[in-house]
Amino acid sequence: MSAYKQLMAFEHTTQALGQVAGRLGWDQEAIMPSGAAPQRAEEMAAMEGVLHARRIHPKVGAWLAEIGDAQLGEVERSHMRHIRKSFERTSKVPADLAAEIAKVTSRAQGIWAQARSDEDVAAFLPTLKEVVGLKQQEGQALAAGGDVYDAMVDDYEPEMTANEIAAMFDAMRPRLVALREAVLAAKAPPKLTGTFPSAAQMALTEKLAASFGYDFEHGRIDQVTHPFCSGSGLDVRITTRTTDEPFNCFYSTIHEVGHAAYEQGIDKAYLLTPLGRGVSMGVHESQSRIYENQLGRSRAYTSWLFPQMKKVFGDFGVENAEDFYGTVNRVNDGYIRTEADEVQYNLHIMLRFDLERALMLGDLAVDDLEAAWNDRFEADFGYAVDKPSNGVLQDVHWSVGLFGYFPTYSLGNVYAGCLNDSLRKAVPDLDVQLAQGDTSAATGWLRENLQQFGGLRKPADTIVHATGAAPSGEPLLDYLEAKFGDIYKL
Amino acid sequence: MSAYKQLMAFEHTTQALGQVAGRLGWDQEAIMPSGAAPQRAEEMAAMEGVLHARRIHPKVGAWLAEIGDAQLGEVERSHMRHIRKSFERTSKVPADLAAEIAKVTSRAQGIWAQARSDEDVAAFLPTLKEVVGLKQQEGQALAAGGDVYDAMVDDYEPEMTANEIAAMFDAMRPRLVALREAVLAAKAPPKLTGTFPSAAQMALTEKLAASFGYDFEHGRIDQVTHPFCSGSGLDVRITTRTTDEPFNCFYSTIHEVGHAAYEQGIDKAYLLTPLGRGVSMGVHESQSRIYENQLGRSRAYTSWLFPQMKKVFGDFGVENAEDFYGTVNRVNDGYIRTEADEVQYNLHIMLRFDLERALMLGDLAVDDLEAAWNDRFEADFGYAVDKPSNGVLQDVHWSVGLFGYFPTYSLGNVYAGCLNDSLRKAVPDLDVQLAQGDTSAATGWLRENLQQFGGLRKPADTIVHATGAAPSGEPLLDYLEAKFGDIYKL
Repeated sequence: MSAYKQLMAFEHTTQALGQVAGRLGWDQEAIMPSGAAPQRAEEMAAMEGVLHARRIHPKVGAWLAEIGDAQLGEVERSHMRHIRKSFERTSKVPADLAAEIAKVTSRAQGIWAQARSDEDVAAFLPTLKEVVGLKQQEGQALAAGGDVYDAMVDDYEPEMTANEIAAMFDAMRPRLVALREAVLAAKAPPKLTGTFPSAAQMALTEKLAASFGYDFEHGRIDQVTHPFCSGSGLDVRITTRTTDEPFNCFYSTIHEVGHAAYEQGIDKAYLLTPLGRGVSMGVHESQSRIYENQLGRSRAYTSWLFPQMKKVFGDFGVENAEDFYGTVNRVNDGYIRTEADEVQYNLHIMLRFDLERALMLGDLAVDDLEAAWNDRFEADFGYAVDKPSNGVLQDVHWSVGLFGYFPTYSLGNVYAGCLNDSLRKAVPDLDVQLAQGDTSAATGWLRENLQQFGGLRKPADTIVHATGAAPSGEPLLDYLEAKFGDIYKL
Repeated sequence: MSAYKQLMAFEHTTQALGQVAGRLGWDQEAIMPSGAAPQRAEEMAAMEGVLHARRIHPKVGAWLAEIGDAQLGEVERSHMRHIRKSFERTSKVPADLAAEIAKVTSRAQGIWAQARSDEDVAAFLPTLKEVVGLKQQEGQALAAGGDVYDAMVDDYEPEMTANEIAAMFDAMRPRLVALREAVLAAKAPPKLTGTFPSAAQMALTEKLAASFGYDFEHGRIDQVTHPFCSGSGLDVRITTRTTDEPFNCFYSTIHEVGHAAYEQGIDKAYLLTPLGRGVSMGVHESQSRIYENQLGRSRAYTSWLFPQMKKVFGDFGVENAEDFYGTVNRVNDGYIRTEADEVQYNLHIMLRFDLERALMLGDLAVDDLEAAWNDRFEADFGYAVDKPSNGVLQDVHWSVGLFGYFPTYSLGNVYAGCLNDSLRKAVPDLDVQLAQGDTSAATGWLRENLQQFGGLRKPADTIVHATGAAPSGEPLLDYLEAKFGDIYKL
């Protein structure tokens, strides 16, 4: 067997084990008995040990060296790129540093949760300093003289740099702040009233998932506290939640269906290979966001959703489909990122991006983080943070060492804006179909032009291939200004 | 670190990975999306590869050689015994033979299912010949000159021999045949009538599981086609099913709760060690059977169950608790092992034990299997097999290479008989408690005298420790003759 074939066979098994580890995480969040947690931690650690050993196995290094790139086709070169990247990334970080990060972040999450509950920033800072210090060490190991924060972004959005992101975000921010101010000064659409039983929400949410083409034969829907999507290939599971407010359930579901559609839409020839998964967090988020927002919150789709909801829940205080479109897209003041609407969400991300980048580069001390957060929040949102759980303590990410991850949320929105622009040009009568609850032309275009390729191309090239142009924030801003200018009669 | 500590640390990880693989099997049977099967096969194979490599890792052999047994305590010696056995068993079977068995049995299961559906024994025989031939080779590798079938039994009931089993079974068989004849000649208790909605069955079955002490904080109940129990330590999941006939659901549940109680009852000091699991299939089945039969189908417990069922289902054609006790224990003619009652079940097993032993030892040709089955069935049950799906094709076991497994079902019944004898002596007023739906004294005695020890002692020694005597079929037969003599007024 050639070195290439041997490496791919080895990688096939590694990918299969990665799916097993991922599903263990799904089980833990979705259905695990509560008392199983201590044993589960041991099981997860055992799987992580197996995967780590395979990623840096000396045989992988030897095969990679033997293969080279010269006579390989596009798909094979892409496989080698992914495997080499994983091998080098794992090799660069000393094992004891990786173990220390795992240990500290696992402890830090609990300390963060307690501090948030107690509204006590000071109780979290010593631990956050540890995490930041360890992640800086990791960044230095990965960057090998280059930019520490770039190295972290690269884990989630390969080959994207913080300078590129900053240029994009800095250009977007003033228009978003202005739009936010104009919208919140205008007359708001009606709010939902009434009660929405959980079982009825779940029944309708399954129908919505189906309307977006979620493949139940290769997936399932369960209820959790924080919805997510898990798995690749033939087993892609989504989760959702029900609260008093049914849009939370419906748009969480559609969001996760977007993630799942990407995984379920990848060419089956790539099953259990490095190409058989979404290529980056940003591109992944572009799929969840375009399903949720540009499609799911469109005037056309909500005109179909309105009678569906009336049939299930009776009267809920909204008189007609046009008002309902406004209700779905209502913009409210709020401190919490995960509850933010299309207009304000990216402002939350830009705040975190600038702060975490400064933390990692040593330009901002952990002790000064809360003040920096509060200043920036007031500048962009127009009012002061009232308590830490609504401010610097609201997100879990930093406690578990996720630095470089936040910007991918907004990159996803930016990519979704670009894709929506191309999709609308390619399918001019899309709204006629969406108004009948038929998303197949939209999801078909996304599958054909993006989803099927999985990890074949680099993230930015994936967007270029689908849209014909480099990613830019302009289409998203144009879309937001037009949509909310219309709803809010600006 | 000492060799012992290094070996135990390595084993701890292996055990954790074994739990992961087991839960993957649970997921597949209980909740997996149907279309995920091909990918799941790859994931299972990847996990099996990891586990196999760890079981025969050269480091394990070196540690075992270095440690010896001399200065170890009882627990440590038991750990070494389990690890050495696993290492030697895995080392003895050539890798290509193990792979061939995995390949052939995975194919054979589908061929068996088709043949059963077509009532076509001839279509299954060539494949069964392959399986038998491969298992004989495996048995020879394991036995190393000893008895091939003993080596197979040893996989499921360590250190039990086929001669011991045969002596026990041959002594029991005439009394069971006689009891069966007497019971079926007598007037039968009433049958259930009425309808039993699935959701109501599940609600009551959860209450019954709780009445037997199932720990929902470390487990969960799901519905499947063929109920089973999965997992050890802090995550022990059971499954059940609903049919038109609610006893099927209730006693499947109580049976699996028995298995789960064993796993959940093991000393937590043994978590993720070789002692942290039930010691053998036979001892495991003793727990499921004593919960299901000697406790769950007792006059006392059914007198508590009767009003519970009436409350949920209203009238179901049984007038009083004494009649209900008869209904629960009603003996019917039937071909199918899995539907058999306490009186007839062991006759099914003895038939299979004798036939599979003869197959393995070459005393019975695969071509003669159907005729041998039919002759034996008529001899023990008094009427002829009407079709292969009611006869030689009814069980999946042989198609997947499970030889040596069947006798453990009846060993479990025998052990349950012994344990019940001791339990009744230790807790003289047990029936007073069971009549209130309170099983805690019974389950407490089982936990204290058997369950907590997990794999500490060999299977037979486990029973001896709990009962003070070597396992024997007498207490089970005495119990059955007394119970059914009473119900059927013999």
